[in-house]
This record gives sequence, structure tokens and C-alpha cells, in this order.
Amino acid sequence: MSDKYVYTFGDGKAEGNTTMKLLLGGKGANLAEMSNLGVPVPAGLTISTEICTEFYKTGGKYSDALKKQVEEGVSEIEKIMGSKFGDPSNPLLLSVRSGAPASMPGMMDTVLNLGLNEETVQGLINKTGNDRFGWDSYRRFVQMYGDVVMEMKPESKEEEDPFELIIQQLKEEKGVELDTDLTAEDLKNLVGMFKDAIKKNTGKDFPTDHWEQLWGSISAVFGSWNNQRAITYRNLNNIPADWGTAINVQSMVYGNMGDDCATGVAFTRDPATGNKMFYGEYLVNAQGEDVVAGIRTPQPVNESTKSDPDQKTLQEIMPEAYDELDRIYKSLETHYKDMQDIEFTIQKGKLWMLQTRNGKRTTEAAVRIAVEMVEEGLIDKETAVMRIDPEKIDQLLHPTFDPKAEKKVVAKGLPASPGAATGRIVFHADDAEEWAERGEQVILVRIETSPEDIGGMNVAKGILTSRGGMTSHAAVVARGMGTCCVAGCGNLNINYKSEEMKVGDLVFKEGDWISLDGSQGEVIDGKVPTVTPELSEKFGKLMSWADKMRRLKVRTNADTPHDSDVARKFGAEGIGLCRTEHMFFEGDRIKAVREMILADDEAGRRKALEKLLPYQRDDFYGILKAMHDLPVTIRTLDPPLHEFLPHDDANQQEMADEMGITLEEVKAKVDSLHEFNPMLGHRGCRLGITYPEITEMQARAIMEAACQLTKEGVKVYPEIMIPLIGTKAEFADQKAVVVKIADKVQKESCVNVNYMVGTMIEIPRAALTADEVAEEAEFFSFGTNDLTQMAFGYSRDDAGKFLAEYLDKGILTEDPFQVLDQTGVGQLVEMAVQKGRSTKKDLKIGICGEHGGDPKSVGFCHRIGMDYVSCSPYRVPIARLAAAQEALRDK
Amino acid sequence: MSDKYVYTFGDGKAEGNTTMKLLLGGKGANLAEMSNLGVPVPAGLTISTEICTEFYKTGGKYSDALKKQVEEGVSEIEKIMGSKFGDPSNPLLLSVRSGAPASMPGMMDTVLNLGLNEETVQGLINKTGNDRFGWDSYRRFVQMYGDVVMEMKPESKEEEDPFELIIQQLKEEKGVELDTDLTAEDLKNLVGMFKDAIKKNTGKDFPTDHWEQLWGSISAVFGSWNNQRAITYRNLNNIPADWGTAINVQSMVYGNMGDDCATGVAFTRDPATGNKMFYGEYLVNAQGEDVVAGIRTPQPVNESTKSDPDQKTLQEIMPEAYDELDRIYKSLETHYKDMQDIEFTIQKGKLWMLQTRNGKRTTEAAVRIAVEMVEEGLIDKETAVMRIDPEKIDQLLHPTFDPKAEKKVVAKGLPASPGAATGRIVFHADDAEEWAERGEQVILVRIETSPEDIGGMNVAKGILTSRGGMTSHAAVVARGMGTCCVAGCGNLNINYKSEEMKVGDLVFKEGDWISLDGSQGEVIDGKVPTVTPELSEKFGKLMSWADKMRRLKVRTNADTPHDSDVARKFGAEGIGLCRTEHMFFEGDRIKAVREMILADDEAGRRKALEKLLPYQRDDFYGILKAMHDLPVTIRTLDPPLHEFLPHDDANQQEMADEMGITLEEVKAKVDSLHEFNPMLGHRGCRLGITYPEITEMQARAIMEAACQLTKEGVKVYPEIMIPLIGTKAEFADQKAVVVKIADKVQKESCVNVNYMVGTMIEIPRAALTADEVAEEAEFFSFGTNDLTQMAFGYSRDDAGKFLAEYLDKGILTEDPFQVLDQTGVGQLVEMAVQKGRSTKKDLKIGICGEHGGDPKSVGFCHRIGMDYVSCSPYRVPIARLAAAQEALRDK
Repeated sequence: MSDKYVYTFGDGKAEGNTTMKLLLGGKGANLAEMSNLGVPVPAGLTISTEICTEFYKTGGKYSDALKKQVEEGVSEIEKIMGSKFGDPSNPLLLSVRSGAPASMPGMMDTVLNLGLNEETVQGLINKTGNDRFGWDSYRRFVQMYGDVVMEMKPESKEEEDPFELIIQQLKEEKGVELDTDLTAEDLKNLVGMFKDAIKKNTGKDFPTDHWEQLWGSISAVFGSWNNQRAITYRNLNNIPADWGTAINVQSMVYGNMGDDCATGVAFTRDPATGNKMFYGEYLVNAQGEDVVAGIRTPQPVNESTKSDPDQKTLQEIMPEAYDELDRIYKSLETHYKDMQDIEFTIQKGKLWMLQTRNGKRTTEAAVRIAVEMVEEGLIDKETAVMRIDPEKIDQLLHPTFDPKAEKKVVAKGLPASPGAATGRIVFHADDAEEWAERGEQVILVRIETSPEDIGGMNVAKGILTSRGGMTSHAAVVARGMGTCCVAGCGNLNINYKSEEMKVGDLVFKEGDWISLDGSQGEVIDGKVPTVTPELSEKFGKLMSWADKMRRLKVRTNADTPHDSDVARKFGAEGIGLCRTEHMFFEGDRIKAVREMILADDEAGRRKALEKLLPYQRDDFYGILKAMHDLPVTIRTLDPPLHEFLPHDDANQQEMADEMGITLEEVKAKVDSLHEFNPMLGHRGCRLGITYPEITEMQARAIMEAACQLTKEGVKVYPEIMIPLIGTKAEFADQKAVVVKIADKVQKESCVNVNYMVGTMIEIPRAALTADEVAEEAEFFSFGTNDLTQMAFGYSRDDAGKFLAEYLDKGILTEDPFQVLDQTGVGQLVEMAVQKGRSTKKDLKIGICGEHGGDPKSVGFCHRIGMDYVSCSPYRVPIARLAAAQEALRDK
Repeated sequence: MSDKYVYTFGDGKAEGNTTMKLLLGGKGANLAEMSNLGVPVPAGLTISTEICTEFYKTGGKYSDALKKQVEEGVSEIEKIMGSKFGDPSNPLLLSVRSGAPASMPGMMDTVLNLGLNEETVQGLINKTGNDRFGWDSYRRFVQMYGDVVMEMKPESKEEEDPFELIIQQLKEEKGVELDTDLTAEDLKNLVGMFKDAIKKNTGKDFPTDHWEQLWGSISAVFGSWNNQRAITYRNLNNIPADWGTAINVQSMVYGNMGDDCATGVAFTRDPATGNKMFYGEYLVNAQGEDVVAGIRTPQPVNESTKSDPDQKTLQEIMPEAYDELDRIYKSLETHYKDMQDIEFTIQKGKLWMLQTRNGKRTTEAAVRIAVEMVEEGLIDKETAVMRIDPEKIDQLLHPTFDPKAEKKVVAKGLPASPGAATGRIVFHADDAEEWAERGEQVILVRIETSPEDIGGMNVAKGILTSRGGMTSHAAVVARGMGTCCVAGCGNLNINYKSEEMKVGDLVFKEGDWISLDGSQGEVIDGKVPTVTPELSEKFGKLMSWADKMRRLKVRTNADTPHDSDVARKFGAEGIGLCRTEHMFFEGDRIKAVREMILADDEAGRRKALEKLLPYQRDDFYGILKAMHDLPVTIRTLDPPLHEFLPHDDANQQEMADEMGITLEEVKAKVDSLHEFNPMLGHRGCRLGITYPEITEMQARAIMEAACQLTKEGVKVYPEIMIPLIGTKAEFADQKAVVVKIADKVQKESCVNVNYMVGTMIEIPRAALTADEVAEEAEFFSFGTNDLTQMAFGYSRDDAGKFLAEYLDKGILTEDPFQVLDQTGVGQLVEMAVQKGRSTKKDLKIGICGEHGGDPKSVGFCHRIGMDYVSCSPYRVPIARLAAAQEALRDK
């Protein structure tokens, strides 16, 4: 610990700078930096974080050395600001604020207007000629000091602040509504009442000595480093407790001293569009909070942002201050190399900068600003790529609601698939298809969806379910299709029979209009206009830079030629997961599938599979063709067979009629296939092992399509993937079936196809024994949905019931179905990568679970050395960007 | 490779000995050993396993050196046996048998009576004066040689042996039924017909030269090392293919040359009881296979085993041979230090020993023999303990069927809980209770059982289900109760409505008698008398030795004071798993439980839990008292709440009436609790986190009971265990709830209780993050049932559908729910032990899954350093023994 504890700033110089965040905190370092830049910041001093540590070590005592340095610092401030701390005729007023090395917004305490007492308040009034201002400042100070330093603030949020109660009472007595309706006299009375309350509650007098006020505030702010909120926040954000906070003691400036005063906020570029223009708002004779509070309408700072000829710009009314502001914002942006969000105050014609920080912006603006700053030579391409939050570019790819439209949100569910949609309610997939055919926009509303609903889901503008989580059938399929979906909306009461949906007292019937915001999980009553985004040329440029920076390949999960096309346009470099089961539902196929399931013996099953073969071959032909020159991973049948049978009476009867059997026979089959825990039941490779003829048919369909395309001169790279492997023996069994058929088909067609046979790693045991599995498998693809289900023991269809509570209580910080749990599940993934490669050095490894499109998880996949990630088409750009960022971090 | 390939034995000496199994094979080494002991074995030679390797290397060629050594060996045999190989007047006949280092019974080929041709057969006839014997030996040789060497044996088992077809034809022609009805002439004709068939099928003549016969046989036997059966057997038993087999060429001796010949088998002690007496059977003028074939009734070898005064003992009719046999069996037992199973032949008055091996025995005998051999000073206690197969002692603890009773097995299921039971069929748990009350013996027959059936299961003599595996509810509960159970008997068609059970064409109605063999998984028509075993004093002695040798503690899984008592008698050193959910079903409690489930808010739940508290407190009082001085691990509520609600209309109506609500309300609750995969749903600690008041009530009940007992001077060690933990945060949440209540209760009762709060490790993620979990947990207990379910992704309720096929196909070698999968699941267990102890060096660790009673798994638990295993009461002795054996292996 050095013997310098206090660092002053102001008047174009400072003892600290931006690199000293650990010692001066983020705020202190930034104020010093601004001051160094010659920006007029109100002078002040920063007490270093080391003193916070000392404070706790000594039980709140301060050394004489510190006291001396603070006093010297204050006189430096006095010199710069031309006023004197505690001087009744020309008082210097101070603020005391925390400032930790890491941002902890609102977690610690602040004291403003410090230095006021019965004498200095008169000085302030004389100086400003504004007695209301003087008394208002004083009563605010007493209230804040009382709350923070003298601990008048109640511990529980439910109890009202005692000062607010007094104000409330006074307003009632006076019959006024707003604080601003109180007169100077009222405010003066309030000061007295506040002080009485303090005396009564704490037994102590409110301190009149300005130094006592200052040290009391410093101690309170240091003390607030260890309040419960701050501790919890640090725990959640992994901020070390021993960092401590610095304290900034800064001179107060006021934008509300009169009409030669103003206050405002501005952005150095348009935060909505990214347009390069100085963009801001201000109010004359106002405090900062008035600008955002919306009571008075703020005015534009300059001509170019004026939207109404009646508006008065700052440029017009305070041209000198504006010119200085113009100079300053430019230098700030150049210095920080990013769009800045700045706060300023003009006190009696003099401009003061209160804060500058990187400005929040829309994704559209973020992309434009980043690319243009590269073009301007301000930043390099790597920096531009790092600037964009991958998660946010989703907004660029999906329709959104017109931000100006009003929305009546009636329920909230999970934001399962982004975008916005408006349409008429239907409750059955068949109806959705029927309505869509006659040109209606529909929203499909279901308790949950199942593979049978695929047709209806495909034509719906949006999908709403009352059950199921982020990886429920509805969610996964909707994301794949790029269709907006709100899932697991537990407040909905859906009745299929009466075709009604109830939310509280509201009743929606078939045909009623609703709207869904899939990015927010909102269900909205009635129509809301939507805006369809266009991908800008700037976006293309940024992504092309990103692509050159990444190592990880990005594939897509796609089951149709159409999805494959979409994904290719989004930059997919192959298919990482083509599910074959969705194909089983289309048109007549489901009949053959059911025939197979009902068959009593292998011969019967083979007969039914014969009928499916041409369909599947056509499917694969289309997909492999669309993905020419790129690898296509096709998964053999995965879901349990009962998913292909109808579960309600009406559909069972229909099936019985169609197949020419009795309803009882259908019911008996459904019963015999019933499982207590189908997720852990007879599915995946377990089906292929029991019924090798299914795997044979699929292998034949894939290989026949591949051979045909090869003959046609199309380059295809099918990768046949066996799901739900838990042991090497299971994989070996299925691989043998595939290879036998592949050999046969290649001989029959006299061409050779470059194909592979690999496995999903989605069962914990497969990860644990990946070295053995790799002896047979030619590639691994992590199915992290199932792996997460089994590693956590959470059924993704049921976990909604407790996951929300887990997230609320902080038992989980993220939904593990959305963000890969690196601590637990990640161990299995990393272990499998290492074990797999210990057997086969160059084993091709990817991920095809939903996590493949989550930026954090993509980063993890890069770090542990996967070859590619695969995600739904609409998340391909996200994954590309995330992969590039992780590669840059790796450097 | 040395230059000695052939090792002779006979006449009280041998070139090999028992330590040379890798070179001479098991059989060759044993024959040498016997010969060295002075036991009269027919002379012979062993060709070493190295020649087998050579045989495959050279493509079946033999070196001159080998030929010379074989010829020298044969002349050594000739010298000892006093006859000459190929000599028409006094022919030496030989057998050629395989003999691998590891036993591969019946997998390879054998040739007997080698050396016979048209001339030597006459010599044999002249020598024995028995032409039928001569021709019979010859036709057997031609048949065997034809099959084995000349490859006449059809590849498929379905095709009949061509020689058998010829015999069949001849018998039909002659109008006789048995082979023994054929005359010498017939047999002579058969030889001719056999030779013709060989010529016709193979184009080759049957070799008359005795050396050609010998080398042909040797090559055939070496060749059989790589037949498909042998390869499969080696793969299944992990026998290296490069070990090869040795070949034994041994002189033939005959017990069927006349009335001065005999053959027999004997045990050095009674294999049924272990009684120390020479026990055996023999037949005059017979071959070995006649003794076991049961056509003639074998006679007892001596007076003491005579059961009928008419029987002629070997001692009486061949006293000299018997005396020598008596001398030999004693020396063999002393030499091998174990009860021997010996085969002997008396040829023309001369005793020959053909084989000795450790005899198979009942478990009762095994225990008695082992203990008595220690008492005799033959073996030490460690050896005695190692001799008993822990899995087998189950037989000593459960009733068995009278072995003499006839049984008509009508179906087979899983041997879910051992023992035998006979009783009348009931289909409902209520009926079981009602019938039992009026003194009926009942067998409860269910499609599957659920916790509601607990009362009926408790009174049933046996339980039979048509669904569910070895860890299904029925199986687990039955094993806990020590009640016989056959589970997952898929051939049963159970109809609850008509109260009928169909098996094929058989129909069983309520009240019909059936019997169950839970050790074999057999369902038997009608009554079968059972025998109840008594634990012998020898058994107690053996177990007391075992207890001193083991390090691992053995606890029990018990939910009632009664089970606790039983387990204590079996040697349990505490309770490792006390499930609290079973307690929720008894009497009026279920009503309070349902009230809690139906409650709309916390207040309602608390009100219902108040009612449960006294019941639970009494439960724990009883259990803790029964287990005084020993630790008792109590698991908080685990199953999903819907398990406590009725699922059929009738019971739902009854519940509605009882609770004074509508049927619809009951149904709505059941619906709202429905889960797609309840195993991965809202259960375990997830319940306790959502409804902390449940954990609170249970913690209070446990601690109030513990405090009360402490006051009464009873020492109690409750260990409160939180189930289904996947993250440290979950555990911390529940631990805080428990500790808060425990502190409160201890304060209220003014006593301190030595209690702990720990966790199940049953979720893969808990194992992966065990270091974190151990920061909070005071002990770990592995729930390997769930861990296996999740690591494999097998629902134990559904896996029956494919597990059987997996075992059949060799995809799994053992059911992972019965034997812990050390390769996969074991990694998680070992990892969790290491990680847990890396955080807390002395962390107490046990296992409470079903595997805690499986000997192999107990061995694993010992090796990875667990502190204890816990299993159902009836498996406690098994675990004690297995733990001792593993400790001995460890030395």
C-alpha cells in the first residue's frame, strides 16, 4: 500500500487515469481520464479502494495521513471551483459516491448536496437568488444523509421511508399533489420536521459541521460495500469481496439554478440507427432526472435532430456552451473509440461534463457504428467484430412489432423462438392448415405440440403452448422454422373441446386475433403491426470479417431442402443434424409408418418399410442436393414409436378405419407401447437394435440418394449418425447394419460415396466411455439437449415446473437447456472430446444440440477443440459471430 | 519356445505338474499332478499349447521333432499300460482330448477308442472275450472320427448327424428301440455302413493306419480351438485367443469289459449337506455315461451311504479296489484341500482314476465343508471365507421348494426377490389384506405395483407382476421385506376387472393356488410344499470370521422398526436408507398427504403437514430406537406428488367423497401433476425446494424423535439425507431448512443430538461436481439406481422391453440395475468419491442403491474406498461376506 490515498481531478488535469480502475474504481478512473483530456468535469477527489480495505481492517477508523490528504484535496477543489467548503457566503457543495473497480449499479450509497446547513443554505440562496432551490437542496440533503448515514431508511422494502411519509402528510395538509407544488416555505418547514424525526428516531442531532457531514458520508459509503444487496450482487457476478470500493468526493453543479442553466444527455451517434450525427436532448433550468422523467418535454440539442420547427435547440439558445459540447463529444468519441452516451449540465452558462460512457444502442446501430468506425479508421476489424453481441443479432433476422404500436400483454411465457407474429387463433394443426390454405394468418395454440402437428406448425405465423420449456417440441421446431413461438405459458387454460383459451377472466375463441412476441415471451390481445427487417450491407460486411477470424465451422440443423436453402443463405457450412422422424408424418407416409408399428413380425415390418423407402430416398435426395459440396449429418430414427400413433379416441378411430382394424387393436398397440418415462425408454439406437430393418431402410434410402447424386455429378458427403448410444456395442451393432447396406447399395449402383458412420454423444455413459466408442465411431456429435436432461435428471418437458423457481431463487443462474452448463455437463463434453481423440486423433467432433446456437456455449465448443457447431438456420449468423469472437479471445 | 513339446504322465510319475496350466492346459496339468501323487491314472501324454500356436502359424504342419517326441511318448504309454499301439493281438487304444489353460467345457472336439481297425478290433475282442464290446467300441470310434476329423457332422444343429440316421434306420429295420438292443453282428454291420457313408460323402476312405488316425485326431482337436463356438465362448469369457489349447493323448480304460469292471463317480464329502463322508455311486460293467444317464440304477459305493439293504456296495463286491479308492480320495482331498468330485473306472479289477476336481455343492454344504476344514486344520479361515459364493447364501435365508416336489412351471419372469411361496391369487392389495386377515395365504398378482399397494404387499406370501424390472417398485419393496417376488413376467395377461390371469390357454381366477420361485423367476401351477431354512451354527461361525476380515461397514435399507430388527439380526451396522414415502400411505396418513397436495397455498399445506408430524415422529422414534447406537440415514421425501393420488376413477371418486370435493377437482389435480417423464420431474429435493414446509416437517419429526430418545438415554445418530441433488445450491438450500429446524427443536427440548445433513449422489451432475457439493454436504450416499438410470438413459420401469434383448445379443453382459456398471457408472462413482474427499478428507461415503447387496458391486465399493454399503435386510449377510472377500483380495 502506497502512502498516497487521495487523487484529485479537475481543471484539465488529474492525478489518476483510466488504467487505475483497481485503485480508483471505474468512476474515479474515468473522471480522472476525462479531466486529463481537458474536458470540464466538476473538480473532485477519489479516495482509493485501499482505504476501503483499511476501513474494514480498523473497524472504521481513519489515519491522520488520510485526513490530511482529504483536506488538501478539498482545498484543491475549492481553488478550482472558486468557492469554499463550509463558507456561509460562498459554499462549496459536494457529492460523495461509491465507485468500485467493477460496475455495481445502484448497489451502494450516495450522498448529494453535502455541506449545507442553516448558514450555508443562506449563502446558496443569496448566490443563486433562488430560495426555493436553496431549501429544496437542503431538504434533499437532510433526507439523503438521514437515510444513508443516520440509518433512517427502513430495512424492509415494504416499510415506507419515514421522510417520504412526512412529505406525504404535508402534501395532504396543503392539499397539493406534486412535490413541485410545495413552496420554499414548505420545504424549509420540511427540513425542520426531518431533523426532528431524526432526533426522535436515532437520539442524535443532525450534524451541522460540514467536515462531520463529509466523514459521516464517507464512512456510510464504505459501509455500504458490505450491505446485503452488494454482497449478493458480488456473489452473482463473481466480484471479489476484497477489491473494496473507492469513493469520489466531487463538487456539485446545478442545471436548475435559473434560466442560464440547463442539463441534458446526448449520444455521439444515433443509438437507434447508428447514423453518424450528434443526437441529444436537454432542458433549461432542470435537474438531470427531469430529462428522463418525462414531466417536461426535452428539446433537441441541434438543428439536425429537430423534428418540429417550434423546438428550441441548445445550439440556438446557448451557442457557446453548445460549441464547447460539440468539441468535447468529438474528442471523447475519438478518445474512447466508441459511440458515447454523455451527461452534461450548464450552470450559469458554464458547461460541465458529468459522465461519458459507451452508449447503449440497437443491434442495427451497433453493426453500422462498428463497420463505419472501421471505415473511418477509428477501430480495426477485430474490434468491430468483438463489439456486436451475437445474441442480439437475432433481432435483425426476425420480424418485430412496430415499436410505436400499443400492446396489451395478457400473459407471459417462455421466449421460445424469436420474432413477432399476429394472427387468428386455431387450436388444431389440421385447422391451421385449412385456414392457411384459404389465406388466413393463424396462430396455432396448443397445450403442447407433437410431431403430428408439424403441418400446422409449418403454416402458422406463430405458435403458443401452455406447457413445455425452451427445448420442448414446439420450441425446437419453431426455432428451426424461424417461426415465432411462446412456450410454456402456464397461465393459459386451453380447452380443445370448446375451442377456447382462458387467461384469467379473458376468454379467447377460435378465430380471435392475438399477437405473440417470441423474443419477449409475450402474449398480446388483438392485432399488432409488425416490421420485417432487412439485412443491411453493413451486416454482410461485418459477418464476412467474422468468418475470416473463426476456426469453428458452423452447420445447421435442417430436415428439409427448404430449411437447408435458408441455412445456406445464412452461411451454414453443412447440416449437423437432419432428423428423419419429421419426414415420417407427411402425407401418406404416416400410414406406412403405422403399418410398420402394427406389424406382428419382421416380414410385416419390412413390407411397410418398403413403402417408406422411396419417400425417404426422395427426402435425402433433396437435402443432399441442396447441401451439395457440404457434409450432411443424418440421424437415424430417434423417437419412441408411440409418438407416431394417435392418442385420442377420434384419431384412433380414424386410424382404425384407415387400416381396416378395430379401435381395440389400435388401443392395445398404444397401450403396449406406453412407457412411464419415454425419454429414457425404447428409442434411439434401441429401436434400431430391436428392429434392424428400420435402420436398414434408412441406410438404404440415404445411400441410394447419395449414389444417384454422385452419378449426376453432385458432390455429397452423407454422415450417418446413430442416436442415443450408451455403449460401444450398441454402436458397433448399428454400424454393422449401415455398412452392410451401404456396401450393397454402392455395389448395386456401381459408384462409391464418401460416407461416414458416427454417433451422437448424448447419454452420459457414452461420454464416460468415449474412448471405447471412438474405436468404432467415425465422428461424434454432441446431443447436448439429452445430455443435459440426463446429467441434471431434468425432463425438458416437465422441468418448467421447477426451473423457473430455481432461476428465481438463484439455485441456477441460467437455464441449462439454453446455455450449456459448463461446470457439470461441460465436464462430460470435454471428457468425451479428450477420450474420443485419445483413441482417434483426428476424430471429427461437433455439437448439434440447441446449445450450438448459444454464443457462450459456442465459445465453450471452440475452447475445447470441437470442429463445428450446428444450430437452427436462424441462429447460424449468431454462431458464426460467436465463433469469431471466441477465436479472437483465444489470441 | 523350449524344445520340449510333449509331457508324459502315468505310473506314479509325470513330466508336468499343476503349476504348468498355461503350457499343458488345465486337464493336462491336473493329470500330471494326479500321476505325481501316485494316483493310478491311465498313462498318457500332453502336447503343449505352444504346438497349437505353431499349428496355426504353419497352417497345420508338424515338425519332425514333435513327431519324434509323440512317438517316444506313445512308447512310454505302451510300456506302462502293457499293450502296443496298433498291435492286432494286444492293442493300445487312445483318447485324444483338448485341454485349454482356462476351462471351456464342451467347446472343442474329442476322439475316443482311437487305434481300432479291422485287425485290432479282433485283438480287443480276443482280449476281452466280448465281441459286442469290441464292435461297439469300433463303431463308436468310426462315428466320432467321422464326425470330428472327417467333418461329417452337419454345421447346423437342425440337421441330424448322418451316423445317427443310419442307426435309426437299422433299428427300424430290426424292430428294436434301444441301441443296447443291437447285437454284435448289427454293430459290425454298422461299422461297414458308416465307412460307406464316409466314402460317399467325403470321397475318402476311413483310415486304417493307427498313426494316421492319431495325427488326424490331433489336427482336428487343434482345429477346433478356432471353431465358432469356441471363439464366442472365449469372447464372452475374456480368454485370449493366443493362449491356444493343449492336447491330451491318453490310454483308454473300460468299465464295461465284463463283470470285473465298473465305473463310478464320488464326492469326498456329501455335496448336499457337507457331511464328512465318502459319498458315491457306481455301476458294474458300465461306461461312465451310464451312471448319469439313469437307465440302470447306480449303487452306493459303501455301507454308510447305503439306503436299502438290497443294494450291493462297491466295498462288498470289489473290496480291494474300494480300499485303494478310499486311500486315494483321502489323499486327493488332503492334496487339493477341498472337497473333490472324482470319476473312476475299474477295468478287470484294476482301479483307474479318470478325473478329480473341486466338487460342486449346495451352499449349506459349502459353508459346512469350509468351516469343518478350518477345524480340521486343512485350510485357514481366510480360505474358508473365500470359498463361499456370496450370491449363493441367499438360499440359506429364504424358504425354498421341497426339492422332491413336482412343479408345473407355467411361466417365467425375472427372479426379483428370492425365496419360494405358495398361496391363493388376489389381484388387489386391499383384497390381499382382507384375505390375510382371515388367515389365507395369498399371492398378490398385479400388472405392476405402486406405493399404494404397500399394505397388501406386506401381507402377501409372494408377489407376481407382469411388468417392471429388477428394480421396479415390486422388486425393490419385496426384497426389502424378504418376500418372494417374480417380476416382469410378460406372458401373463392380467385383467383386473374380471379378476383373471391368463398364461397362454391357462386361466387363473381369484382364489386359485399358485406358487412362485423368486430365485428362479418361475410361476408354478398349484401348491408346492416349501422348506424353511435355519441358519446353522457353522454359518454364524463363518460370518463371524468374515466380519473380522472386512473394512467396509454394512448397513441396511429399512423403513420400519420391524425391518430394522430383522436387519440387525442379519448383522446390519446401521440404516443406510430409510425411505420416508412408504410411511405416507399407512392408515389415515394418506388423507393428510392428499390434503397437503390439494392445498392451494402454503398455509393449507402447513395445516395438513401438522397432521402428519406426529405420525412421522412416531415412525422415526421407532426406527431410531430399534437402531440405537447405530447411525440411521433418513431420506427426505423423494417421489413425485402424483404418486400419492389415485389414478383410477373408482379411487378418485372415493378420495373426492372423503375429502368433500368433486371428482373433477381430484381429476384436475391429478392432471396438473401429470408429467411426461416423472423420473426426471418434480421430485426429490426439487419438492423440498418448492415446498420447504415439507422438509421442515420431516426435519422436525426426525429431530423431535431423536431429542426424545436422547432424553430417554438412547444413543441415536440420525443422518438426514437430501435426495436428487444436482447442484451445490440445491443442497445448501435444503440443508439450511433442516439446520434451522434442528437448531430450533434442540433448543426447545434442551438436548443436543449428534446429527448430520448429507446428500444422495444419484444425479450424474452431482457426481461431476462432487467437490462443490462436498463443501456443504456432511456425507455422500450413492443412489446407484437413479445414477444408473441417468448415466445409461434407461428408465428402470421401461427398460425391460429392450434390456432382455441387449443381454441376449451380448450388447450388455449384465443388467446394470443388478450389477453396477463399473466401466461407465463406476467412473461417476469413483470420480465423486475422489472429488468429495478432495474437499473433505474424511467425508463419510456409502452406497444405498440396490447394488449395495450385489457382491461384485460391493467389491467395487471397497476398492474405491467407500465407508459402507447399504442393502435390503436379507442381503446384509451377502454384503458382509463380499466385503470380507474383497478385503482379502486386497491383501
